[in-house]
Amino acid sequence: MRQIRLIVEYDGTTLHGWQRQRGQPTVQQHLEETLAQILQHETPVTGASRTDAGVHARGQVACFRTEKAIPLHGIRRGLNSMLPPSIAIVEAAEVPADFHPRFSATGKHYRYSIWTRAERSPLLRDRTWHHPEALSEGPMREAITHLIGEHDFAAFRAAGCTAKTTLRRVESIDVDRVGDVLTLDVRGNAFLRNMVRILAGTLAEVGAGKRTPAQVAEILASKDRTKAGYTAPPQGLELVSVRYDGVRPSPV
Amino acid sequence: MRQIRLIVEYDGTTLHGWQRQRGQPTVQQHLEETLAQILQHETPVTGASRTDAGVHARGQVACFRTEKAIPLHGIRRGLNSMLPPSIAIVEAAEVPADFHPRFSATGKHYRYSIWTRAERSPLLRDRTWHHPEALSEGPMREAITHLIGEHDFAAFRAAGCTAKTTLRRVESIDVDRVGDVLTLDVRGNAFLRNMVRILAGTLAEVGAGKRTPAQVAEILASKDRTKAGYTAPPQGLELVSVRYDGVRPSPV
Repeated sequence: MRQIRLIVEYDGTTLHGWQRQRGQPTVQQHLEETLAQILQHETPVTGASRTDAGVHARGQVACFRTEKAIPLHGIRRGLNSMLPPSIAIVEAAEVPADFHPRFSATGKHYRYSIWTRAERSPLLRDRTWHHPEALSEGPMREAITHLIGEHDFAAFRAAGCTAKTTLRRVESIDVDRVGDVLTLDVRGNAFLRNMVRILAGTLAEVGAGKRTPAQVAEILASKDRTKAGYTAPPQGLELVSVRYDGVRPSPV
Repeated sequence: MRQIRLIVEYDGTTLHGWQRQRGQPTVQQHLEETLAQILQHETPVTGASRTDAGVHARGQVACFRTEKAIPLHGIRRGLNSMLPPSIAIVEAAEVPADFHPRFSATGKHYRYSIWTRAERSPLLRDRTWHHPEALSEGPMREAITHLIGEHDFAAFRAAGCTAKTTLRRVESIDVDRVGDVLTLDVRGNAFLRNMVRILAGTLAEVGAGKRTPAQVAEILASKDRTKAGYTAPPQGLELVSVRYDGVRPSPV
């Protein structure tokens, strides 16, 4: 039995996230239905990250199994010719049977983008959170120092999150700015549900002067979701890449 | 009578271009209808560039007249709250009565973006032309040297173009690359219909080795549209800014 690993790019704007749902277009559903046509058998597709509706991906990693001897470039081209324009396969590779896109992952890189001008931007509206006030990067960077490392991130997870442990290791959060777009590049071993979006919402409050960097340390210590900031909206979030054993399979 | 100049950003994906058309959503129509509601009278809106369906703008310039004493920030905010998400006003300013967005312009800056990987990119599909083969920048830059300056660009205009003279001055065409996206920044005094898209299509043929740089000089000299290359698709094109008397009003 072959296991094939796909690197998948998608524009989440019109998709209802990664995970299969009745009656809604999702990435998993599109991949499973298209693969069933190509392979002539059903096969479940497992993803590295269950991205929410509206969230984008440049380097989502997904796996499926088949006994069919179709060459990798045939699988890639077949999928790309049949998938909707919002989803594309960047790479297809054969991986060992014990590889698992989520459990084998050693790290993930997400990028959160914020448009910080008063006026909304039509060209960036599906790729950024519109935050009409300017953000001060200095206090945001200071707040970030409290978040780096292994911590209990219970204060930064969505109400419905079912993870057994809330310990996560945040490796780095880099703040950058190009014009009026501020980006947060967040790297860590794994993330709780909505964690990056709650981090982005909380750091934006620090950048806007509504909270101090020291308060972020208090929020983290509280382990209480109600203490942290707003869950920043999905369209600003992108899964950039997933790392395995120090090797980043993403093409970026 | 006040004349107000607007700087307009739009995502052309779902719009049928700048110019008013029966039964199709266009930028001019949205602006005229929204202004009529705000001003409580009809007023024609004139634009600097008649961008085609699918073409984007960061710095389109548009003017209208009114006797109403509504402050500029009220006009800007009113328009931004009522226009569809694909259109926004970046700036509103009062200008002299003899200012004309097209005839007063001394130059325009367009950017054409090309995605040069074999696989299509969902995240860039509405903002780039997908050219699946790599493009060599060296020959493209050599071809560009033949295009700079004042020339008769009759070979680089659409069949339906009604301009009286086909003399235009191309000031610069800068080739740049970020990852797999190649951009052409084209600056000139004015442009014929589809000229930037035909230039992009022709230069891509040079980059792909299908034409030599010297052939571009021959195409220009021929003044014959059938000699030039493909009209590159609209979604790769963006009107970056319009220049007036050496002052660029664009916010970019």
